[in-house]
Amino acid sequence: SPTLPTNKNFTKHCSLESGVWVTYKGGVYDITEFVAMHPGGNKILLAAGGALEPYWALYAVHQQDHVLEILSEYKIGVLDTESCQKQESTIPLDPYSAEPTRHPALQINSLKPPRVDPETYRLEIEGLPGGVVSLSLSELKSRFPKHTITATLQFAGNRRSEMNKVKQVKGLNWGIAAISNATWSGARLRDVLLSYGFGPEVAAKAKHVQFEGLDRDVTGTAYGASIPLNKAVSEEGDVLLAYEMNGEDLPPDHGYPVRVVVPGVVRARNVKWLGKIVVSDEESKSHWQQNDYKGFSPEDFKSAPAIQELPIQSAITHPAEGTSGDCSDREGTVKGYAWSGGGREVVRVDVSIDGGKTWHVAKLHTSDQEQHPAPPPPPGRAWAWKLWEIDVPIPHRAQELEIVCKAVDSSYNTQPDTVAPIWNLRGVRSNAWHRVQVKVSEGLKDQK
Amino acid sequence: SPTLPTNKNFTKHCSLESGVWVTYKGGVYDITEFVAMHPGGNKILLAAGGALEPYWALYAVHQQDHVLEILSEYKIGVLDTESCQKQESTIPLDPYSAEPTRHPALQINSLKPPRVDPETYRLEIEGLPGGVVSLSLSELKSRFPKHTITATLQFAGNRRSEMNKVKQVKGLNWGIAAISNATWSGARLRDVLLSYGFGPEVAAKAKHVQFEGLDRDVTGTAYGASIPLNKAVSEEGDVLLAYEMNGEDLPPDHGYPVRVVVPGVVRARNVKWLGKIVVSDEESKSHWQQNDYKGFSPEDFKSAPAIQELPIQSAITHPAEGTSGDCSDREGTVKGYAWSGGGREVVRVDVSIDGGKTWHVAKLHTSDQEQHPAPPPPPGRAWAWKLWEIDVPIPHRAQELEIVCKAVDSSYNTQPDTVAPIWNLRGVRSNAWHRVQVKVSEGLKDQK
Repeated sequence: SPTLPTNKNFTKHCSLESGVWVTYKGGVYDITEFVAMHPGGNKILLAAGGALEPYWALYAVHQQDHVLEILSEYKIGVLDTESCQKQESTIPLDPYSAEPTRHPALQINSLKPPRVDPETYRLEIEGLPGGVVSLSLSELKSRFPKHTITATLQFAGNRRSEMNKVKQVKGLNWGIAAISNATWSGARLRDVLLSYGFGPEVAAKAKHVQFEGLDRDVTGTAYGASIPLNKAVSEEGDVLLAYEMNGEDLPPDHGYPVRVVVPGVVRARNVKWLGKIVVSDEESKSHWQQNDYKGFSPEDFKSAPAIQELPIQSAITHPAEGTSGDCSDREGTVKGYAWSGGGREVVRVDVSIDGGKTWHVAKLHTSDQEQHPAPPPPPGRAWAWKLWEIDVPIPHRAQELEIVCKAVDSSYNTQPDTVAPIWNLRGVRSNAWHRVQVKVSEGLKDQK
Repeated sequence: SPTLPTNKNFTKHCSLESGVWVTYKGGVYDITEFVAMHPGGNKILLAAGGALEPYWALYAVHQQDHVLEILSEYKIGVLDTESCQKQESTIPLDPYSAEPTRHPALQINSLKPPRVDPETYRLEIEGLPGGVVSLSLSELKSRFPKHTITATLQFAGNRRSEMNKVKQVKGLNWGIAAISNATWSGARLRDVLLSYGFGPEVAAKAKHVQFEGLDRDVTGTAYGASIPLNKAVSEEGDVLLAYEMNGEDLPPDHGYPVRVVVPGVVRARNVKWLGKIVVSDEESKSHWQQNDYKGFSPEDFKSAPAIQELPIQSAITHPAEGTSGDCSDREGTVKGYAWSGGGREVVRVDVSIDGGKTWHVAKLHTSDQEQHPAPPPPPGRAWAWKLWEIDVPIPHRAQELEIVCKAVDSSYNTQPDTVAPIWNLRGVRSNAWHRVQVKVSEGLKDQK
């Protein structure tokens, strides 16, 4: 459709009743129909009748082709010159322009980190018998023993892109890399709660521990999440108020100065830039606890439990989809990761190169540089992923292989065979067998 | 092959070197080749060179057509009259002939229960600082608070028959009914261990709690199993030394006077007729802990963890496979159970009547007679199954339906789609989607 110049009246289209128009780089878009489909919910209405730029500067998730494509479907015109100039003068500058530079290897989809001064930082704790506690960073470090764990954090939407192939989901098109593993050090949440009066009387009333970040989005809302009380206070829960990552202060992107690390639990509950802890009889009221990160489609959001532990997961990291492997020696190496929620240890990974008909058992290890294998974790406290590797024989005359992996954890839970039966609108808990198609080349062999 | 009379020399064939011959009801069988395939392992050699009858009288698992069929393949002859008469005079009578009658509805595959006198019963506990403890039944009941839980116990080989259809497994051909749910009362194992000196020093050395039954098989071996120490002593583990089942003394078949109930853990660790508890740095050395009830095939028995928690499970109990449903009202009711190990609550069951293409969400409840719904269990302590039910619309002109169910637990673990990828030689942890084929009749509608 032709894009006609539209005058400054676009500002009137700022509600669902009058239609929702927004502008972006001089274009005008009628997104009324899209509002209900927006992954971020009603927040999209903040831009109604105005420019998208200031919001997209904050919500960097929008900075990708996929989002621009969706937007382009709704284009209805371009701004007239007068409106365009007027608007340009009012669009605010990037408020985070003075922030530390992020590592260039990182794909950044979150807001830029809030700047927290370690000297004035306070962690507040509510809901314990002694009233509100306020702890400085140095108090947190000095009053409680430092505890260290290695834990994998997985985004609820890891491998969402595979669900997108079944049917469009609402959310960013994540591949297999929305997962990480690090060594975290900090005070145990259990120790902190016990030292400020947590006891059986509190446990009889409270059922959850809520966390609130110091980050604020454009609406002024802090990020929030909660975990079950028993995970927070159990000696075997290993929940940390972490101030170190891999032996150094937390980097700004990872929650400096303090974040929660809830091992075995979906990343969304591992709140960064932690400002407040509330022991409560209720879950966090936040959008992310109540209306997002649930494993079914929105019609079941009320009855569905908020995702805490995630199910058994594995993925192939090498070779990559669509690559050509040289198989002149008739063997190929397949590598990947495997992890399960709730501290359940990965006990086996099987790999197939014929699409799942026959399987080979992969070798498991705990890190890339394994000189001294780590002792096995106590039952139920295997928080870190396992890396796995296998050399598989390549059949003669094979031109294309479908490589598949699947894992089993210590509760003998397995991954589902296929994606479609676990599809859900937000594209979370995507953990079907991971499949990679590769071509087989024999170049080197022929040249010898 | 013809069966020739064989003389009394059959007694010489009593080893793998000389061949293993056994007799059964006057027939002679060369089972040398079968020894390696015997689910009960080397115990089969006890009968070598002699009669099977006394062993089969004790191991009632053999009393079925399936076993006789296997045996018949190995027939090499019949006993001559003299040998036959001589043998009959020496075959012992059923040593359990004076036992209480079992309920006629029960399919019995286990040994008859040992008779334990409650007056002289002692429970011994080893591995705690105070030396060996010996507790009478009345001491167990009076010294420790009575704790009650409702828990589902599932046999590791439940639904094994579906694996048998993929490829023959070693084990009885169990359908979907090797699972039960009951309310158990007894002393908490945690309370007992703590009262006899269990503490951090013990925990630093010991990793397991072993159980030994008072039952003895024909070799004089007691049944044995173990569980991880943290399950045994955790406040949230709810492990019971149970002396009541559904409000009454344990029935003989269920372990009178005392059995272990380890909720969330495979039935094999819930030792009946409990005689001894050992806190140890090692797992039970028993056959059932070391060489059986592992979820992979025997080549991996060393590295595979002994099954403790079982994975998410569900099955259709109504309608039954192969039945005809009257669908004159174009709706049919489907019912079943769902359960997950480790105290993970079943949060959803989906039912399909088109083989898994489209799904309906079933209604969950905790019992058949649900007047006052039970309060939800604390996180991680959902020990009881859920029953589920749904009325599904029957498509017009449908003649046959493939009904399928699948469940999701609170960790968002799901059942695998198909059986073949989880097949293992012992046929354990069979938890793929359950499928039932039924015919649709419209008899009543036509008659109206």
